[in-house]
Amino acid sequence: MHNFKQINPPHRLLMGPGPINADPRVLRAMSTQLVGQYDPSMTHYMNEVMQLYRALFQTENRWTMLIDGTSRAGIEALLVSSIQPGDRVLVPVFGRFGQLLCEIARRCRAEVHTIEVPWGEVFDPQQVEDAIIKVRPKLLLTVQGDTSTTMLQPLQELGEICRRHDVLLYTDTTASFGGNELKVDEWKIDAVSAGLQKCLAGPSGSSPITLNARFEDVIRRRKCVEEGIRTDDHIQGDDEFIYSNYFDLGMIMDYWGPERLNHHTEATTMLFGARECARIILQEGLTQTIERHALHGNALLAGIQHMGLNTFGNLEHRMNNVLGVEIPESIHGEQVRQMLLNDFSIEIGTSFGPLQGKIWRIGTMGYNARKDCVLQTLTALEAVLNRLGFCTKQGEAMQAAWNIYASAGEGVNS
Amino acid sequence: MHNFKQINPPHRLLMGPGPINADPRVLRAMSTQLVGQYDPSMTHYMNEVMQLYRALFQTENRWTMLIDGTSRAGIEALLVSSIQPGDRVLVPVFGRFGQLLCEIARRCRAEVHTIEVPWGEVFDPQQVEDAIIKVRPKLLLTVQGDTSTTMLQPLQELGEICRRHDVLLYTDTTASFGGNELKVDEWKIDAVSAGLQKCLAGPSGSSPITLNARFEDVIRRRKCVEEGIRTDDHIQGDDEFIYSNYFDLGMIMDYWGPERLNHHTEATTMLFGARECARIILQEGLTQTIERHALHGNALLAGIQHMGLNTFGNLEHRMNNVLGVEIPESIHGEQVRQMLLNDFSIEIGTSFGPLQGKIWRIGTMGYNARKDCVLQTLTALEAVLNRLGFCTKQGEAMQAAWNIYASAGEGVNS
Repeated sequence: MHNFKQINPPHRLLMGPGPINADPRVLRAMSTQLVGQYDPSMTHYMNEVMQLYRALFQTENRWTMLIDGTSRAGIEALLVSSIQPGDRVLVPVFGRFGQLLCEIARRCRAEVHTIEVPWGEVFDPQQVEDAIIKVRPKLLLTVQGDTSTTMLQPLQELGEICRRHDVLLYTDTTASFGGNELKVDEWKIDAVSAGLQKCLAGPSGSSPITLNARFEDVIRRRKCVEEGIRTDDHIQGDDEFIYSNYFDLGMIMDYWGPERLNHHTEATTMLFGARECARIILQEGLTQTIERHALHGNALLAGIQHMGLNTFGNLEHRMNNVLGVEIPESIHGEQVRQMLLNDFSIEIGTSFGPLQGKIWRIGTMGYNARKDCVLQTLTALEAVLNRLGFCTKQGEAMQAAWNIYASAGEGVNS
Repeated sequence: MHNFKQINPPHRLLMGPGPINADPRVLRAMSTQLVGQYDPSMTHYMNEVMQLYRALFQTENRWTMLIDGTSRAGIEALLVSSIQPGDRVLVPVFGRFGQLLCEIARRCRAEVHTIEVPWGEVFDPQQVEDAIIKVRPKLLLTVQGDTSTTMLQPLQELGEICRRHDVLLYTDTTASFGGNELKVDEWKIDAVSAGLQKCLAGPSGSSPITLNARFEDVIRRRKCVEEGIRTDDHIQGDDEFIYSNYFDLGMIMDYWGPERLNHHTEATTMLFGARECARIILQEGLTQTIERHALHGNALLAGIQHMGLNTFGNLEHRMNNVLGVEIPESIHGEQVRQMLLNDFSIEIGTSFGPLQGKIWRIGTMGYNARKDCVLQTLTALEAVLNRLGFCTKQGEAMQAAWNIYASAGEGVNS
């Protein structure tokens, strides 16, 4: 039992759909010594985190904070706090993470209605409005970027549609946040959850969320302050209470708010990491960060296309930060992934369900949305494919990628 | 927005009821670069974590793993996965964290029955058995160390009692784990949850749990594999499904088990930290770690008593790692805490509910179960009390603490 060695994983370049390599600055921030959960410096950092994430979500929402858990903890917190048993919800499903929203909503005992498009496509706003008129849901649950298909659902018009029909709009942005445009207030999205392990260049384990006054109102009506800390001043809500303590956003808001009512013990190290993720992006500039994701996504796309590989899905609606690549008929997809991992220490992704074995998913996000990562991945992939007998035209893929960088004003030697 | 500085909290010596300072080795392990969630090195580390925590829990339980969230995430995962709406549970409440178990069980729509003793006391096994016979619960939910009162409930006999009456026994060991004896298999405890931020010398944000075959059986009967990854080979359970996706232990077991069925994306950095917490304890030896907590707890107790302060609760049943100290009549408790924090950078705790303003809670746990921490805290506390007009007999407290160390074979100059 004393033979467990110091942690020392192999070096990997993580070019899959996420998690990806963390920015070393985030890891350094996470090695900061702890302070008490009500230390003035800690509550100050909690307030800073709220400010920083308001900037990333492009919102004025007061309730912008972290859920202590992985991305799906943020999803479940928003869903279980808003859905009462029997509530109707509508989920436009265009990949596995739409299915996940259905799954979580069912656990909240919602009456779940779905509309579907083939994987690789996204919804037209009119399709969504038609379904809303038919179903009359309390909530519309959407995914912005569904990594399973690499598609990005346009959200601009959905907020207005939802307001028109008095529906609450929730969006899961785990895979797209920080690398693709998201304007929470302008687009009238009522609640959003995200994660750190994709474009934010942090580790999984903390889920930034934001919610507006319309969404808060639903939660507050279900408020229930727990017995050990309840006083006569605490007003309990009229509606059925929330069927989770850990994910009860009413209590979580009271913990992040001025009352600082004890709920969980904030995961300090994850909070330090989440703060650094956001700080780094705002130092670069949110617009610049998104443009960087677009640039490296475009370079990867050009390289893949000129390697003679087909991409998956509707390219007009692809995410900046992850690309679906069809596995050629003659090639065994897992063998390529193994060779990339074992011989180059580069990880690319497989996919789920109907796409398993059909496509690879290659990411360029967060700390790995960099030229060296894209070029190394392209050269390694081409070398492996050549080794397995798939012919490419010498040099074309790399030239195409380089050309994208050159046309973006990044010289070949920059 | 670019004015957020690098993280740099003040140095604190955290001598409250936890969180306490993390061991620097844990923080260093957490600054390790990431690997993919299915990388062979990652799944290897997950398996190591299972082994390491089996040793700490003193169990052979296969399902010994981490829940990604704070300690109460571990509690909720075990409760929501086992309790079906309408199930009767019995909770012996001897402090705030017993109340929390009631609260979480109610959220699971259990029929909650309680027995109570005055805060500062624990239960006699016979009281528990009598209540079991009366209530006939499906589960007995207990707290081992309730930090709100600093009491440690003896658990040795409860497992046998529960087996006799076909009741499942769950224990929350968040505050006591690693600093007090806990023999999961020998004591026949069916499920246990813990946290890192107390005697384990890590940050909050990951909850080690263990459960045995009896407990697994209840969970498996409620199994529900989510749509996006379900295949025809997956058997669904007969019982009502679990009302949470994030905390569905059936799916979490499939993720930690050989099938590695995708659920959440494991919080890699927290897992690296949790691994190091356990590794450090096993390097020292679990028995030695518990003895160290007892030694420093005894030294603190001797010092406090010889300062002329009264302790809180039944000392026979106190936890090794945290001591309740009555605030003298003439003294304003919060003023003392403020002076300790501002002038010495030492944090001690207040308490909850009926004990708020009545007692301080002083911890000696994890990385801070050390002689220098105990002696610094005692001298600082005595100095502050003297400053505020509370008389102590010059030198007595320190001599008493030193004597404990001397009698344990630790010389004054060791």
